[in-house]
Amino acid sequence: MINTKSNLKQKYKHIKAILTDVDGVLTDGGMYYSEKGETLKKFNTRDGMAVELLRYHNIPVIFITKEKSKIVLSRGKKLKINDVYIGITKKESLLPKICKKYDLKKNNLAYIGDDINDLQIMKQVGFSATPNDGMEIIKKNSDYICKLKGGEGVLREITDLILDKK
Amino acid sequence: MINTKSNLKQKYKHIKAILTDVDGVLTDGGMYYSEKGETLKKFNTRDGMAVELLRYHNIPVIFITKEKSKIVLSRGKKLKINDVYIGITKKESLLPKICKKYDLKKNNLAYIGDDINDLQIMKQVGFSATPNDGMEIIKKNSDYICKLKGGEGVLREITDLILDKK
Amino acid sequence: MINTKSNLKQKYKHIKAILTDVDGVLTDGGMYYSEKGETLKKFNTRDGMAVELLRYHNIPVIFITKEKSKIVLSRGKKLKINDVYIGITKKESLLPKICKKYDLKKNNLAYIGDDINDLQIMKQVGFSATPNDGMEIIKKNSDYICKLKGGEGVLREITDLILDKK
Amino acid sequence: MINTKSNLKQKYKHIKAILTDVDGVLTDGGMYYSEKGETLKKFNTRDGMAVELLRYHNIPVIFITKEKSKIVLSRGKKLKINDVYIGITKKESLLPKICKKYDLKKNNLAYIGDDINDLQIMKQVGFSATPNDGMEIIKKNSDYICKLKGGEGVLREITDLILDKK
Repeated sequence: MINTKSNLKQKYKHIKAILTDVDGVLTDGGMYYSEKGETLKKFNTRDGMAVELLRYHNIPVIFITKEKSKIVLSRGKKLKINDVYIGITKKESLLPKICKKYDLKKNNLAYIGDDINDLQIMKQVGFSATPNDGMEIIKKNSDYICKLKGGEGVLREITDLILDKK
Repeated sequence: MINTKSNLKQKYKHIKAILTDVDGVLTDGGMYYSEKGETLKKFNTRDGMAVELLRYHNIPVIFITKEKSKIVLSRGKKLKINDVYIGITKKESLLPKICKKYDLKKNNLAYIGDDINDLQIMKQVGFSATPNDGMEIIKKNSDYICKLKGGEGVLREITDLILDKK
Repeated sequence: MINTKSNLKQKYKHIKAILTDVDGVLTDGGMYYSEKGETLKKFNTRDGMAVELLRYHNIPVIFITKEKSKIVLSRGKKLKINDVYIGITKKESLLPKICKKYDLKKNNLAYIGDDINDLQIMKQVGFSATPNDGMEIIKKNSDYICKLKGGEGVLREITDLILDKK
Repeated sequence: MINTKSNLKQKYKHIKAILTDVDGVLTDGGMYYSEKGETLKKFNTRDGMAVELLRYHNIPVIFITKEKSKIVLSRGKKLKINDVYIGITKKESLLPKICKKYDLKKNNLAYIGDDINDLQIMKQVGFSATPNDGMEIIKKNSDYICKLKGGEGVLREITDLILDKK
């Protein structure tokens, strides 16, 4: 399902909001546990810069994760992320709500994911992408496979692609 | 001792429970120390997804580690692992107990390990696997050598293999 | 803009102070978040050794970062860094102040950066460098691209270059 | 100065104690800083297993580090390391004391180091080794360059070499 370069641009040129999974996309999938449970996640400063660039271009960023993680809320707060959804089992069920809030169609949404619980939402949005180390089934169903792995700045790579930078 | 693909399937098709070491398998072997001793271990979200998939298929997961680590208990609790054994010197000595509890034979058990204290238990179970960066002697005695390294989602790789996914 | 070896030496032989970005240069860009916000950054002991070597040669080291990070202050204090500037939006605006304090010209300053907010200051100093995994646009505008990635000892690599060690 | 295999064995067959640097050897050089200073170091479980194997063979292990780090004391305590020296500027000055304590000659000591402050002690012991990512000058002056990088189990690699395991 990988597209040619011109095909690809046809898909992402209509994108007006970016939705992204967290673990395995904004991180390398690592969960740092202490005796008390998950304590840390490792994010990347380049994804932070991506959020700033997107804000400048009025493109909202939305986090959607299966985990009920306060760490994700804390990272979202720092970056002033528009919406942070945690504890979401069926991610695709959020699409009508998001489309309504931002007055967009599904075709205007991009989604970045890496695992099987991302598959359904990826099939419904206008442009889907996965880190270079995404699960095989996700790579097969993505419009774009990043050069970078999860946690290395995947959101930045998609941002530069969509904003047409090199 | 590496098997052909069909040989391999003969071995893992009878697997009804997965036993796994922790350090070096579910982690990259890293132990994060503060002044007060070991403080953190880095687990992987994909191994968490593996446990969910296995639960759905009624395949119990059991952690067995030499370390007396409360961090392992904390990760086990989060994932609702069936049994978490810590501080185990002779891992193979647990096999009768585990077989009895789940009404299984050794041939129905898989074990994932990476170091010399895993060797005896690996020889007794029906299917043995090791991360790509397992110790040489363990690689030589494993039915399957993972494509992934410890901490990169080794349990998920074995899970997808046993559940016959790609 | 990459220079030949002799050209390069012409540029760095006049360097009498080293200015450096933090995230992505002294670290791999990783930001370790807890529920309470950013908690840890991972620095490298070799960059610590670099600061000692530079101090021995009377070459001041200056940290300049966009982030308002107390972690950077803490690392700077440990290494007795001459000046640590945090929360800086326009890094190039600090150049007159730095030149005055150390009685140097811009041509005597080196700067190590990895992202677009480093671009303007890099164009004004005598010698600019970037980690091997710097952003493409920064690599194109650097006098020198390090062999090492951010967090692997980039400041040490530049130090050994400037001090003419192998 | 790299030796042939038989030459090498001549050197390490007399080893009766192993001395090792910490940062960059037992770790990848990473120092995890919070606002309050260095908070964590990442060690490797395989080096822990190495210490156990060496203890079984009555080969003491000694840590020697330039840093005044309580984290190193904490790791040393967990592993029951024979001697842990912190805050040492001239590491070679400890050799007479160590030789006397264990009734050994310098020729019976191995040392693992990665940076310039390890150079003098490495020249005086019977067998010197460095991680695969040691500094160039250290690699040139080591009897053995490990296959593994710092933090990946370098002490274990040397242990297996000396104990003649594969």
